[in-house]
Amino acid sequence: MKIIALDSSGLVASVAIVEDQTLIGEYNIQYKKTHSQTLLPMLNELRKMVELDLDTVDAIALAAGPGSFTGLRIGSATAKGLGFAMEKPIIEIPTLDGLACNLYGTDKLICPIMDARRNQVYTGIYEYIKKEGLPVSYELSCILQQCAVSIEEIAEKCNSFNREVIFLGDGVPVFEEKLAELMKVPYGFAPAHMNRQRASAFGILAEDYYKKGKFVSAAEHAPEYLRLSQAEREKNTKRQ
Amino acid sequence: MKIIALDSSGLVASVAIVEDQTLIGEYNIQYKKTHSQTLLPMLNELRKMVELDLDTVDAIALAAGPGSFTGLRIGSATAKGLGFAMEKPIIEIPTLDGLACNLYGTDKLICPIMDARRNQVYTGIYEYIKKEGLPVSYELSCILQQCAVSIEEIAEKCNSFNREVIFLGDGVPVFEEKLAELMKVPYGFAPAHMNRQRASAFGILAEDYYKKGKFVSAAEHAPEYLRLSQAEREKNTKRQ
Repeated sequence: MKIIALDSSGLVASVAIVEDQTLIGEYNIQYKKTHSQTLLPMLNELRKMVELDLDTVDAIALAAGPGSFTGLRIGSATAKGLGFAMEKPIIEIPTLDGLACNLYGTDKLICPIMDARRNQVYTGIYEYIKKEGLPVSYELSCILQQCAVSIEEIAEKCNSFNREVIFLGDGVPVFEEKLAELMKVPYGFAPAHMNRQRASAFGILAEDYYKKGKFVSAAEHAPEYLRLSQAEREKNTKRQ
Repeated sequence: MKIIALDSSGLVASVAIVEDQTLIGEYNIQYKKTHSQTLLPMLNELRKMVELDLDTVDAIALAAGPGSFTGLRIGSATAKGLGFAMEKPIIEIPTLDGLACNLYGTDKLICPIMDARRNQVYTGIYEYIKKEGLPVSYELSCILQQCAVSIEEIAEKCNSFNREVIFLGDGVPVFEEKLAELMKVPYGFAPAHMNRQRASAFGILAEDYYKKGKFVSAAEHAPEYLRLSQAEREKNTKRQ
């Protein structure tokens, strides 16, 4: 099966084409343009480069949230547009799950953190569990589901497991100093080629979701913000 | 410092721009076009997308071999052309080292394999060693330097360490069945988003090489084939 994968949930814009557990192409940038200037042009460029016939695509995978509200809306609008036009389903992948997949094969705890502003991070805690059988393979297992909490709270949670932790994500440069104060277990950071969202990881996860029937129609899809937007918060405050 | 990284050593064509341990952009494809059709157009596209001023680039990093002879020559010619025009040095990264870097943070042995034809693989054995200090970081350590050997030979070498091994690279689909026969220790394969060359990994390694003064001029650069080309072999055979 062939999947177009999109991620614009954080600072990175990323598109990928995955076919039967093979990565056909991927294009990522982390640059000061808005995702509405980059995501579709990047997909179009990649599509042309690998001569992709859109009729052969089975589904669209998406980093479905949490993340930047504007980024998520751009990703969702793009996925919905493609899904409607191509009459294909959308596979919604939790953003933090996709991010954690960058560290396949590690025996450490994986803690992706994204800056959620207002002193919070979008985060979760993951580990890779060995599956039965040979060749050996590992399955991503979620210890703490993605959530919006303070950096203090997630650091405390990580400390409680008494295991080494690898942090990754665009929250790292923001909270690096804070983590140095808070962490009581050994911890480190993923290197630059592995520390941001990659659409390919979402595409690979999506193949498994699809096989389990975990997808929605373009009409049904909505991003998972995890929190109210600033506009909604302000509206609620005024009403009180 | 800012680095343009290129890889066309195997089936993948990949370009990346890395700045001070941050990945600005990366573009990878694994498609049936020749790298001469893809590598420079991809770099040009990425350059435009992230508005890269070539005058600000400090060096060009390259997967310098081993690999496909044609692929290496395309990569080297591109790097030399850029290096001459921009008057910047070239940082030559052993292909297998760069490939091994996809698995940062693993406690298993890492064995990248590329199909070298004639019943051989380009391969090596690596592990990540914990460095002193906090935050924890890991350094790639080479147990067996890159070489061209039979799949039997590398499998036997891997078995001798009595540790779990993760294989990756475009040699995996070619030698998967053979490995199932040969391997006596637990082994597995990297997933699709991590199992091929990525220029970003070469770019990240290159920053370190550059700081240690490990670079050459465009004139000095030559790819590392590890073996004689088919044309050279045939010439030698005729002479005998």
